[in-house]
Amino acid sequence: MTVYYKGFPQSDRNEAIKMVNVDELEDRVRKVMPEAAYYYIASGSENEWTWRNNTAAFNHFQIVPRSLTNMDNPSTETQFMGMDLKTPIMICPIACHGIAHKDAEVATAQGAKAAGALFSSSTYANRSVEDIATATGDSPKFFQLYLSKDWDFNKMVFDAVKSAGYKGIMLTVDALVSGYREANLRTNFTFPVPLDFFTRYVGAEGEGMSVAQMYANSAQKIGPADVAKIKEMSGLPVFVKGVMNAEDAYMAIGAGADGIVVSNHGGREIDTAPATIDMLPEIAAAVNGRVPIILDSGVRRGSHVFKALALGADLVGIGRPFLYGLALGGAKGVESVINQINNEFKILMQLTGCKTVEDVKHADIRQINYTADNLPSNTDPSVRRAYPVTKENQMEGTQDAATGASKH
Amino acid sequence: MTVYYKGFPQSDRNEAIKMVNVDELEDRVRKVMPEAAYYYIASGSENEWTWRNNTAAFNHFQIVPRSLTNMDNPSTETQFMGMDLKTPIMICPIACHGIAHKDAEVATAQGAKAAGALFSSSTYANRSVEDIATATGDSPKFFQLYLSKDWDFNKMVFDAVKSAGYKGIMLTVDALVSGYREANLRTNFTFPVPLDFFTRYVGAEGEGMSVAQMYANSAQKIGPADVAKIKEMSGLPVFVKGVMNAEDAYMAIGAGADGIVVSNHGGREIDTAPATIDMLPEIAAAVNGRVPIILDSGVRRGSHVFKALALGADLVGIGRPFLYGLALGGAKGVESVINQINNEFKILMQLTGCKTVEDVKHADIRQINYTADNLPSNTDPSVRRAYPVTKENQMEGTQDAATGASKH
Amino acid sequence: MTVYYKGFPQSDRNEAIKMVNVDELEDRVRKVMPEAAYYYIASGSENEWTWRNNTAAFNHFQIVPRSLTNMDNPSTETQFMGMDLKTPIMICPIACHGIAHKDAEVATAQGAKAAGALFSSSTYANRSVEDIATATGDSPKFFQLYLSKDWDFNKMVFDAVKSAGYKGIMLTVDALVSGYREANLRTNFTFPVPLDFFTRYVGAEGEGMSVAQMYANSAQKIGPADVAKIKEMSGLPVFVKGVMNAEDAYMAIGAGADGIVVSNHGGREIDTAPATIDMLPEIAAAVNGRVPIILDSGVRRGSHVFKALALGADLVGIGRPFLYGLALGGAKGVESVINQINNEFKILMQLTGCKTVEDVKHADIRQINYTADNLPSNTDPSVRRAYPVTKENQMEGTQDAATGASKH
Amino acid sequence: MTVYYKGFPQSDRNEAIKMVNVDELEDRVRKVMPEAAYYYIASGSENEWTWRNNTAAFNHFQIVPRSLTNMDNPSTETQFMGMDLKTPIMICPIACHGIAHKDAEVATAQGAKAAGALFSSSTYANRSVEDIATATGDSPKFFQLYLSKDWDFNKMVFDAVKSAGYKGIMLTVDALVSGYREANLRTNFTFPVPLDFFTRYVGAEGEGMSVAQMYANSAQKIGPADVAKIKEMSGLPVFVKGVMNAEDAYMAIGAGADGIVVSNHGGREIDTAPATIDMLPEIAAAVNGRVPIILDSGVRRGSHVFKALALGADLVGIGRPFLYGLALGGAKGVESVINQINNEFKILMQLTGCKTVEDVKHADIRQINYTADNLPSNTDPSVRRAYPVTKENQMEGTQDAATGASKH
Repeated sequence: MTVYYKGFPQSDRNEAIKMVNVDELEDRVRKVMPEAAYYYIASGSENEWTWRNNTAAFNHFQIVPRSLTNMDNPSTETQFMGMDLKTPIMICPIACHGIAHKDAEVATAQGAKAAGALFSSSTYANRSVEDIATATGDSPKFFQLYLSKDWDFNKMVFDAVKSAGYKGIMLTVDALVSGYREANLRTNFTFPVPLDFFTRYVGAEGEGMSVAQMYANSAQKIGPADVAKIKEMSGLPVFVKGVMNAEDAYMAIGAGADGIVVSNHGGREIDTAPATIDMLPEIAAAVNGRVPIILDSGVRRGSHVFKALALGADLVGIGRPFLYGLALGGAKGVESVINQINNEFKILMQLTGCKTVEDVKHADIRQINYTADNLPSNTDPSVRRAYPVTKENQMEGTQDAATGASKH
Repeated sequence: MTVYYKGFPQSDRNEAIKMVNVDELEDRVRKVMPEAAYYYIASGSENEWTWRNNTAAFNHFQIVPRSLTNMDNPSTETQFMGMDLKTPIMICPIACHGIAHKDAEVATAQGAKAAGALFSSSTYANRSVEDIATATGDSPKFFQLYLSKDWDFNKMVFDAVKSAGYKGIMLTVDALVSGYREANLRTNFTFPVPLDFFTRYVGAEGEGMSVAQMYANSAQKIGPADVAKIKEMSGLPVFVKGVMNAEDAYMAIGAGADGIVVSNHGGREIDTAPATIDMLPEIAAAVNGRVPIILDSGVRRGSHVFKALALGADLVGIGRPFLYGLALGGAKGVESVINQINNEFKILMQLTGCKTVEDVKHADIRQINYTADNLPSNTDPSVRRAYPVTKENQMEGTQDAATGASKH
Repeated sequence: MTVYYKGFPQSDRNEAIKMVNVDELEDRVRKVMPEAAYYYIASGSENEWTWRNNTAAFNHFQIVPRSLTNMDNPSTETQFMGMDLKTPIMICPIACHGIAHKDAEVATAQGAKAAGALFSSSTYANRSVEDIATATGDSPKFFQLYLSKDWDFNKMVFDAVKSAGYKGIMLTVDALVSGYREANLRTNFTFPVPLDFFTRYVGAEGEGMSVAQMYANSAQKIGPADVAKIKEMSGLPVFVKGVMNAEDAYMAIGAGADGIVVSNHGGREIDTAPATIDMLPEIAAAVNGRVPIILDSGVRRGSHVFKALALGADLVGIGRPFLYGLALGGAKGVESVINQINNEFKILMQLTGCKTVEDVKHADIRQINYTADNLPSNTDPSVRRAYPVTKENQMEGTQDAATGASKH
Repeated sequence: MTVYYKGFPQSDRNEAIKMVNVDELEDRVRKVMPEAAYYYIASGSENEWTWRNNTAAFNHFQIVPRSLTNMDNPSTETQFMGMDLKTPIMICPIACHGIAHKDAEVATAQGAKAAGALFSSSTYANRSVEDIATATGDSPKFFQLYLSKDWDFNKMVFDAVKSAGYKGIMLTVDALVSGYREANLRTNFTFPVPLDFFTRYVGAEGEGMSVAQMYANSAQKIGPADVAKIKEMSGLPVFVKGVMNAEDAYMAIGAGADGIVVSNHGGREIDTAPATIDMLPEIAAAVNGRVPIILDSGVRRGSHVFKALALGADLVGIGRPFLYGLALGGAKGVESVINQINNEFKILMQLTGCKTVEDVKHADIRQINYTADNLPSNTDPSVRRAYPVTKENQMEGTQDAATGASKH
């Protein structure tokens, strides 16, 4: 069923999604999301080179199958910042889940909880942190902060987040201004549904704002001292989100960061920034285990999760795929997406002799130079060829009398 | 002619196949195999990246033509584990040959025998090892073992295999669970014909089982000790099949393995595993001649056989191509496929001055970085352009009076 | 409106251009330029490999996003040879702007002035240096010199250029003969509008001359001594344009050059010459700050400007894009193009913590081996897929009663 | 006009060919050659990977444009084995020129003479060496030898070749058996016109023989001693043709070879052999100037000639392109092809400051890793897009009254 918020169609589904892989959802979701909203999600900045290469670059690394491992029943459970998680996959912060579903972040958080995954909501969420907490109790939650120029606004946010039981803050530092996102220009995208913290603080509903305007509200200038200030004001651990080289990892740790998120904002900020997976080894070496590392950007497969963990990450974030799940199936749709990727990941744990997520961190990953094609399989709906129908290749009783070809 | 097993069409052909290369068969066989069975064979896990790159990666290596070699009449004969073979090409183990031909593994083994090649049958074969032995006498045969959780089942298998005159066991260690094979999900593939050992032991015909169910029957946990146990119970040499790096080669040899099969299961288990040819040099260096090495996965050409031998393999296995040959021509079809690849291989022996298969192991192979395209030739049916017909380019007497264009 | 010079259509527009990126103009301009003139601009020599790779090679380098930079309001202003510029982007010399606009170089110079960019006009300009100076006062201007065999002609040019207030001479040394430009052969291109200096000196209007004839007029032989001679006769700083390796940079500096232009003439001379960005690091190291460096060839994006500055350039020239802007919008069109690329550049300065152009010269640039695809984004007009229209994905009130599909 | 030899159409043209580049001829010639003959020429072995990469690999190397070179009027003249040549481009030996033109090798030799290029004819030529000599006097000629098993046949050949004034013998050592050429199998190609030396010696006209049968006549076994024997019996210098690594270059020189031809037989023997240009540096280093080096295989452009000379070759052979020229224009067609490539080469000499062919041998060539695309230019007939016709982009007086669109 479709409900409308001032003419904007929102799904109200709550059903598990039947899929073969999450890549299929990017096409399927076009049928349930308006074009401008779809392209707000399914796009990157400029030529979308980094968006494409974020995923393709995982093929720069290959997983070596292992044998005689004497091990079965791997477990994808993991601990993170004192939280027990059923999967190392987490929900990345994305603004305005209302473009996918009437329950917006509440439904997403419910899906994450059902999958035992760490949920994170954005400063520019439609739903309040209170509503989300009410709907999900003390399920593991992080908050993503677009630091405002206005510290009173920030204080209000910290207090709300702390009392809603969020376990940490992810300070986004790589989007001081919006990347040059051509899709939004071509579709004239504006946020169709009010953003709670804006409504609460400035009264301006945040509705109808363009992406660039929204970013212009946030602080254009963030330095090391801000990390300490946020920690002190919020009383919560602070992760610096958007670190893409060793120098900035050292800077963040020096500033007191409790963790690092290796991210290039899903290829939505600097186009021709390197893929996150290509920068992870350098950053993990610099961090050297001092603080936990989350990696996001371009994650679609269990093998992506596997490689990120093996190359130094502790948690791996997914973005667009969960939002497609939200649009196609609400909370249960989000859960389906997390489970699909986690199931693929679990198969790889068995085939590489990794009993635990910790074992995966010692897996044998190679860097052989292949033409990193990112093609789908031959039976992928987008490329599957029509199958010939002949007298010889049809199940008996289903052939056409004359031609012998199949009737079904 | 087509016969039906409970409605499932099976070829009963026994004729040599006219082909230019084996790649042509992958398209041709669609006309004689039902779609689900076809895609069970012609598919890999997930995006099929490893399946594609298994073959494309052979182009990471180039064969240097040699001159003034003072040599002719090369011979492709070779010795392997005391067996005299007419070719270093062997038949890889594939389950359920009944999806291609009514005589299933019996026909395949006959074809292998005619070509003088080592045959191997799978634990999940349709036909019994006894039937196969009856049909082929003491032609060279290896048995591929999916170790069962149930050691009585294993004992039954070993005894049958030993008395049927099989010369060795290939212990598959890289498929404890099925890779995430999307083609089978999209076609709802289940095994259409009973699997002999299942029928014999558990009464369940194995018919109608999905791939994942089948694998679930096998041991999920295999360790070094199992190698010794199998050797001891079977009284046969044991090859560890699915080794993909030096560490596991050392492990297998340490466990008493009599040989190594470098394989990633034809790209059907871990997608974005490296191609086998790319891992062979490292493994061959580790094995250092202590035990024989077989390589499989992606082999289609004489040049693939040549490169695998030159980089450290002793035998080279083919899979899908022989099954297409079985469907298109039964035993003679299998023989045609082996001979086609062997003839291509023999030409390369002459053009590189390699009198014997041993000489090939010292051939000059280079690793120049080309864009490893895997395109067909211009006259390949899939890309061949229509040829213009003009007054000037037609054989005399075949032109159209008016246009001069050819009539035929 | 379109005016005609002896039947040749020239735009007389003077309007800002609405664009998402400058790549779009290369297709749009086909509607306002005759085919032969279009392909004179939108082509390279032979297979156009260098033309293609000039732009694609920028993806050999990646921009690392930076965090906790404590900086906002970056400025793109820069000083160059004593001139204050609002942008490090300059207008490269291109012959015969009259093929795009009736006001030719005058309009281009006005656009450059409005954008605060260094303008350069070609020896083979339609409009005189005097007209250009009259129209633009003392806005920053360089003159590009095709040295003539006839030093009287050269003297006449130097005097005119000096008195018109030009601040420097760019001596083109990489086009002694025309590259093998197949597009011009296929369209029989000849210069449709008189070239001022030809008309002024030899009386021959230069009109109707082919590219090859034009080049044949210039000196076929230029050596180090010519640099000193030109400096002495012109009384202006001399930049050597067309330097593509360290050796020639040393030679040029040895010859007294006041600056280097790293250029392969936009891929219009030697095909399979390396891309300029790939040679810049070597040249910048050789120059070692002794003289300023300009880079041109293939620049389309703010990220290209960013990378060139970070790898050693002081100014970055654009060619074809500004000419498309001239055809589509006259002076204001040229200004739109410079501002589009400069705005993209400014976003990157903010996202990498570069307050000034000097800061950009210390940015973190990586050289990770990606398949350097040069694809457009998914919403680029040339590839954007039709969007499905369903009951669920349309704004309310815009659906078709029956299908629910959108009316607009 | 078309004449027929037993129904086989042969061109009898003798006219210069108007072309933009030689690549265009490969498509154009389809209109004047029967399909089987065309594909005998325009094909390689197996997947034609080496045939494709022979040309694409030239893009592994880039030509650095040079500046302040103080040089003009380059000359492409060169000396080779005492012969004065107008170009370093030579005619490679190809069998049976009669498939392209009624005068076969006589016309080709005439064309080569007119262009001042070294001509070479094959053991399997249609026309006798006597006819060729009669038609061309003492123009520079080499003879390509397929050594026969029958030394009387060889003696007859040497005597004829010596008395016909040929200056050297190229002993082909890389085609002891035919590569696996799938095009010939698909078109059932057989030689349509008698091969002179076969007719002369064995009475069998050689007509109707397949490629494989032809090769079976030649010696399957050639060793170092044969080089000395041929030198001694022929009294002519002997070049070993088909050398593809340093070891074989040392072997050939050790055997008394007077020169080396770096060749992989145009990609018609071993598929996935490396491209000749990629092996030339190693071979040139091994030869170290002791004997001259010829390179062939995949040469289409002046830049290919330039790179081969710069990387160690003394002469550069072309094959298929001259045969297309022969079919499309007879002797003058061959001359057009040589001149087209030589003119492109001469432009590059000027733009790199190379006054002589010897200078080219010291040119600055780089090996930057590009995605070695081998695409044509945008105006290449095979890819050129239709140009939009609008009111604004048409020459005046040629517009349609109503639409303003052009009438022509």
